[in-house]
Amino acid sequence: MSSRAPTPSRAPDLLVAVANPRPGRVYEVRCESPELTCVCPMTGQPDFATVRISYVPGDSIVELKSLKLYLWSYRDQGAFHEDVTNRILDDLVSVLRPQRLTVVTDWLVRGGIHTVVEASYPDAPLPAGAS
Amino acid sequence: MSSRAPTPSRAPDLLVAVANPRPGRVYEVRCESPELTCVCPMTGQPDFATVRISYVPGDSIVELKSLKLYLWSYRDQGAFHEDVTNRILDDLVSVLRPQRLTVVTDWLVRGGIHTVVEASYPDAPLPAGAS
Amino acid sequence: MSSRAPTPSRAPDLLVAVANPRPGRVYEVRCESPELTCVCPMTGQPDFATVRISYVPGDSIVELKSLKLYLWSYRDQGAFHEDVTNRILDDLVSVLRPQRLTVVTDWLVRGGIHTVVEASYPDAPLPAGAS
Amino acid sequence: MSSRAPTPSRAPDLLVAVANPRPGRVYEVRCESPELTCVCPMTGQPDFATVRISYVPGDSIVELKSLKLYLWSYRDQGAFHEDVTNRILDDLVSVLRPQRLTVVTDWLVRGGIHTVVEASYPDAPLPAGAS
Amino acid sequence: MSSRAPTPSRAPDLLVAVANPRPGRVYEVRCESPELTCVCPMTGQPDFATVRISYVPGDSIVELKSLKLYLWSYRDQGAFHEDVTNRILDDLVSVLRPQRLTVVTDWLVRGGIHTVVEASYPDAPLPAGAS
Amino acid sequence: MSSRAPTPSRAPDLLVAVANPRPGRVYEVRCESPELTCVCPMTGQPDFATVRISYVPGDSIVELKSLKLYLWSYRDQGAFHEDVTNRILDDLVSVLRPQRLTVVTDWLVRGGIHTVVEASYPDAPLPAGAS
Amino acid sequence: MSSRAPTPSRAPDLLVAVANPRPGRVYEVRCESPELTCVCPMTGQPDFATVRISYVPGDSIVELKSLKLYLWSYRDQGAFHEDVTNRILDDLVSVLRPQRLTVVTDWLVRGGIHTVVEASYPDAPLPAGAS
Amino acid sequence: MSSRAPTPSRAPDLLVAVANPRPGRVYEVRCESPELTCVCPMTGQPDFATVRISYVPGDSIVELKSLKLYLWSYRDQGAFHEDVTNRILDDLVSVLRPQRLTVVTDWLVRGGIHTVVEASYPDAPLPAGAS
Amino acid sequence: MSSRAPTPSRAPDLLVAVANPRPGRVYEVRCESPELTCVCPMTGQPDFATVRISYVPGDSIVELKSLKLYLWSYRDQGAFHEDVTNRILDDLVSVLRPQRLTVVTDWLVRGGIHTVVEASYPDAPLPAGAS
Amino acid sequence: MSSRAPTPSRAPDLLVAVANPRPGRVYEVRCESPELTCVCPMTGQPDFATVRISYVPGDSIVELKSLKLYLWSYRDQGAFHEDVTNRILDDLVSVLRPQRLTVVTDWLVRGGIHTVVEASYPDAPLPAGAS
Repeated sequence: MSSRAPTPSRAPDLLVAVANPRPGRVYEVRCESPELTCVCPMTGQPDFATVRISYVPGDSIVELKSLKLYLWSYRDQGAFHEDVTNRILDDLVSVLRPQRLTVVTDWLVRGGIHTVVEASYPDAPLPAGAS
Repeated sequence: MSSRAPTPSRAPDLLVAVANPRPGRVYEVRCESPELTCVCPMTGQPDFATVRISYVPGDSIVELKSLKLYLWSYRDQGAFHEDVTNRILDDLVSVLRPQRLTVVTDWLVRGGIHTVVEASYPDAPLPAGAS
Repeated sequence: MSSRAPTPSRAPDLLVAVANPRPGRVYEVRCESPELTCVCPMTGQPDFATVRISYVPGDSIVELKSLKLYLWSYRDQGAFHEDVTNRILDDLVSVLRPQRLTVVTDWLVRGGIHTVVEASYPDAPLPAGAS
Repeated sequence: MSSRAPTPSRAPDLLVAVANPRPGRVYEVRCESPELTCVCPMTGQPDFATVRISYVPGDSIVELKSLKLYLWSYRDQGAFHEDVTNRILDDLVSVLRPQRLTVVTDWLVRGGIHTVVEASYPDAPLPAGAS
Repeated sequence: MSSRAPTPSRAPDLLVAVANPRPGRVYEVRCESPELTCVCPMTGQPDFATVRISYVPGDSIVELKSLKLYLWSYRDQGAFHEDVTNRILDDLVSVLRPQRLTVVTDWLVRGGIHTVVEASYPDAPLPAGAS
Repeated sequence: MSSRAPTPSRAPDLLVAVANPRPGRVYEVRCESPELTCVCPMTGQPDFATVRISYVPGDSIVELKSLKLYLWSYRDQGAFHEDVTNRILDDLVSVLRPQRLTVVTDWLVRGGIHTVVEASYPDAPLPAGAS
Repeated sequence: MSSRAPTPSRAPDLLVAVANPRPGRVYEVRCESPELTCVCPMTGQPDFATVRISYVPGDSIVELKSLKLYLWSYRDQGAFHEDVTNRILDDLVSVLRPQRLTVVTDWLVRGGIHTVVEASYPDAPLPAGAS
Repeated sequence: MSSRAPTPSRAPDLLVAVANPRPGRVYEVRCESPELTCVCPMTGQPDFATVRISYVPGDSIVELKSLKLYLWSYRDQGAFHEDVTNRILDDLVSVLRPQRLTVVTDWLVRGGIHTVVEASYPDAPLPAGAS
Repeated sequence: MSSRAPTPSRAPDLLVAVANPRPGRVYEVRCESPELTCVCPMTGQPDFATVRISYVPGDSIVELKSLKLYLWSYRDQGAFHEDVTNRILDDLVSVLRPQRLTVVTDWLVRGGIHTVVEASYPDAPLPAGAS
Repeated sequence: MSSRAPTPSRAPDLLVAVANPRPGRVYEVRCESPELTCVCPMTGQPDFATVRISYVPGDSIVELKSLKLYLWSYRDQGAFHEDVTNRILDDLVSVLRPQRLTVVTDWLVRGGIHTVVEASYPDAPLPAGAS
C-alpha cells in the first residue's frame, strides 16, 4: 500500500459555491453523507465515517455535486480523525464564507472505540474555568 | 421533459387563511407532510421531501386542505432545495401573518447526500462573531 | 350523521380536582392518552388524536378517572384541532388552578398532513421581533 | 385484599448512605429501576412504575442494594402516584443530603392514560406569571 | 477470587497524549467504548459498563490505542461505579490537560437497577439553593 | 349513554367492490387503519383499535373510500373485540368474494392487557392433537 | 418477609370463560400484560414479567377482567419462572378448553440474565434425534 | 389538471436489461425506492409509494439508472394502486425474463388507510379451500 | 499479560441442574446475558459477547445463579469465538441432558467485523447438496 | 481517476483458512462488516456496502483478520454489485470448502435506489414454475 501515501490532491477547489438564493435571511442548511473514507496514516488501514455539515450561508451555498466530489477526494488520503474534521471545516469556510458552519465526523469502531469529532466556525468561546 | 420548466402556476393564493379561534393566546401549530415533490431545475430529475411547518398564529390559521393543495403545486416546479424552503416560508408568512413561523424541508438522498433546510420568520439574529 | 352535530354536553364539570398531596412543592405531572376522538365540524369525519397534558399543580391535582371521562366527552363533538386544544387547556386551568399547564394534541394524518397543536398556561411571551 | 391497607412499614431507614468517594466534585449519579410497584389506595389494584433517580451527591452516595430494598418496600403500600414520588424524594434527601436530586416515576397505563410524575430538590422556582 | 483485590497496576501512564493537530481551535472529540469491565470490591462480581468520554483538547489529544489499553487495565481492578468514573476523569485530565472533559459510565443492571455516573472537568458550579 | 346500544346500522352495504384490474393473478392487497373505534357493550366505554386487512382478490377489490366509511360505522356500535373482528371478516368476504382474506384487530390497553384478534377466510385447519 | 410463603390462594377459579361468539371458526386471540409479578421462593425477592398468551378458542373465550384478576393473584406467590409459566398454561387450558394455547413469560434481569419461558397446549412433538 | 390524464408515455422500453454476470447461479437482487409517485385517476390527487422489487435473474439483470427512469415515468400517469403494481411486474418480467420476481408497493396514507400491494411472477398457487 | 494464558479452571461443574418442574411437557426456556467475556488466545486482547441459550428441558433445568457463575468462569480463559460457543454447548448438554439446546454468541466488533456463532444439540442435518 | 481501473490485485489468497475446532458439528458462523467499498466500473464513482457472510464450516473456518484484508482488497476494484457479491461467494467457497455459505451485500443509495444482492452455495433449487 505504499502508493497510498498522503498526497496534496485533495483540493478545496473541488468545492463549488453558488449564489445564495436568499442572501438576506439567516437560515440553515444541513447535509449528511455516510460515504467519507480515508486511510490511517500510521497503519494504512481504511477508516470510514459519516460526515454531517450544517451552516448558515453568507452570499453562497455549496453545490451538492461538488460537495460529493470533494468528500470523495479523501479516499486515498492519509489523515487522523481530528485532522480530517478540521480540514473539511477550513475548506468549507474558505470557499463558502458562511455566517456559521459546523462539521461532525462519526467514525466506525476501531479498537472497540467509536469516535466522533465536532468543529465549528466561528470558534466557540473557551469554557469558563479553563486556562 | 422540456415542458416541465418552472412556471408561475405555484401561486400562494392557493393558501386559505381562516380565523384563529383563540387569537389572544400564544400557542403553536405544527404540520408535517411527506408528500412534497418538485423537479431539479438543472437535471429535470424529481426531488422528494418531507416538509415540517410550525407557527404561532396571529389572527389566522391555515386551512389544512388549502395547505395540501399549495404543497402539491410544487410538483412541476423546477427549484433548488434552498429556494423551495424560502418560498414556502414567504408564502405562508404573507398569507397567515403569524407571530412566528418555521419551515423545514428534509430531502431524500441525492449523490449520497441527505439535505435538510430550515428557515424561520422572524429572522434569527446573526450568530456572535460572524461578519 | 345529522345527529352528530356539536352539542354543549362536553362539560368541564366532568373534571374532578383532588387535593395536591404536596401543595408546597413545584413538581410536575404528565398524562398522555391516545384515545381522544372528535368529529370534524365541516365534513362529519371522525378525527383521532393523542393528547399530552403536563402541569405543575397548585392546590389540586386532577383525578385520573375524571380526566378519562372528560376526554371521552369529545367523542360526538364537532371541533377544529386548534379549538379542541384550547378548550381542553381552558377547562383544565379553570378546574385545577395549576401553576403551569400545557396541552399538546397530536392528530392522525388528514390529506397527507400530520398536525400537532400545543397551548400553555400561563401564556408564553410574544417572540421578539413580532408585532 | 383488606390486609393491604397502607401501613407505616415502608421505612426510609432501609436506605443506606455510604461515603462519597469524591466529596469535593460536583458529579451526577443516575439510577433507574423498572421494578417499582404499589397498590392503589382506592381500588386495591396494583400499580407499576419505572423509577428514575438522579442526584449530585453531597458527602454520601446511596448503596445500591439498600436502594433496591427500599423500592421493594412499596410493594404492599397504598399510595397515589403523586404521593409515592414525593415520598421517595423526601426519603432520599433526608438520608443522602445531596446537592441536588430528582425523582421521576413513569406508570403503566390506567384507564387509557399513561402518567409520569417528576419532583426535585431543591425546589424549582415558581414559573413566571403564576400566582 | 481473593487475588483480584485492587492493585496499583491500573496506571494512567498507559495513556499516551499526542499533539493536537489544531491547538488553536475549540473543538470536541467524543469516544465511546462498550468494553469497560471491572470487579465489585465487595462481592468479587464482575461489572460491565459502556464508557463515554468527550473533551475539548488543549495541546494534546488522546492516542486511541493507548485509550483502549488504559480501559482494559480496569479488568482486574476492584472499584465502585462512582470511583471508577472519577479515576478515569482524573487520569485523562492529568495526561491530556484538556480545556474541558466529561466521563460518563453506563453500567449493566445489578439488583434490578441500571446506574449511570457522569463527572466533568472543570467542575460544574454548585446548583443554586444547595448548601 | 343509553342511546349507544348496538343497532343494525353498521351495514355491510357501505362496502363497495370494484372490478379487480388483474383478475387472473394471485396477488395480495394489505390495508391498515389506526382509526377503528367502537363501544364496549358492557361498560359503554369506548375502545380503540388498529385494523389490518390482507386479501387475495377474486373478481373484485375493495374501494378504499367505502372501506373508510364502513370502518367508521362501528363508532357507535357496542361489540366485543372478538365479535367485531369476525363481523368485519364476514362482511368483507360477502362483498368481495376474495380467494383469501385475513382481519387483525389490535386494541389499546384495557385493565393492563393489550389484546389482538386475528381471523381468516377460508378457515385454517384445526391444529393437530386438538379435540 | 416470612408471611409471603407460597399459599394456595392463587385459584384458577378467578378465571371466567364466556361463550365464544364464533365457535365454528379457527381464529386467534392474543393478550399481553406487562404486569405479572411474583416472589422468588428461595430469596423472597420480587420478580417481574411480561406475559403473552395466544390461543385458538374452543367454545369459550377468556373474560379480560377475570384474566387481569387471575394474573394479579400471583403477586404474593412464591414460584420459579418455569413453574409459573406452566401453571398459567394449565389453568387457562382447564378453564377455556381451547383448541390451542401458548403462554410466554418474559422476566426482568436477575444476575445479569434475562429469561423467557414458553409453553404450549397441546404439547409440541419431541424434536427429531432426541432420546 | 386536465393535462395530467394517463398517457401511453410510460413505456417499458425505458427499462434496460444487461447481461447477468453469473447466469448459472440462482441468486437474488433486491431494489427499493421511496420515490414512486403517480396520480389518482379519479381525483387527480398525487399518490406516493415506496416500491420494493426482488428477483432471481435469468440471463439479464436490470440496469439501475434505467430502473430509476422507468419509475419516474409514472409521475404523470393516472392509475390505481393495484394496477400500478401489476404493470410494474409485467414490464419487468417482459424485459428481464427472470426466474422469479416480486413487486411490492407501499402507499402513503389516504383516508386514514395505509395500503400495500404485492404481486409475483410466476403466479403463486391458489390457496387451498378457495373456489 | 502473560499470566492470562488459558487454564483448565473453567469447569462445567459450576453448572447446577435442578429438577424440571414439568418433566412431561415439551416447553422452552431462553436465557440471555450480555456479560460474557474472555481473552483472545493470540493477542491477549479481551473479547466481549452476548450469549443466548435456548433449550427444551429433559429432567433438569439450569439454576440461574450457577449459569451466571459458569459464564463468569470464561473471564480469564483464552479461546476463539467458535471454540467458546461449542464448549458452552457441550457443557450445558452434559449437565442438563436437554431434549434440545442452542447456544448463540454475539461478539463486539473486531477489525470492523461483527461475528455471531450458533451451535445446537442435537446436530442439525447436513444441508442438501453439500458433500 | 483513470488509475483506478480494475486490476487483478484482489486475490482470494488473502483469505486464510484455519482448522475448524469442532469439525464434526453442523454449526453456523455469521460475520458482518459495514466497510466494503469498491468503484463503479462505468462512472468511477465509489460504492459502499455492508457485507454479511454466514456459513456452516467444513474442515476450516475463516481467520477474521484475513477476511478483513480480503474485503479491503476491493477498495480500488471496479465491479458491479452483482459481480462483487458472486466473487466474494466464489472466493470464500474455494478457500473454506464450507458445507453451506451465503453472502449478502447491502449497498448505499444510488439514483434513489437501495440495492441488496444475496447469493448462496450450494445453489438454491430453481423455483417451481420457472422455465
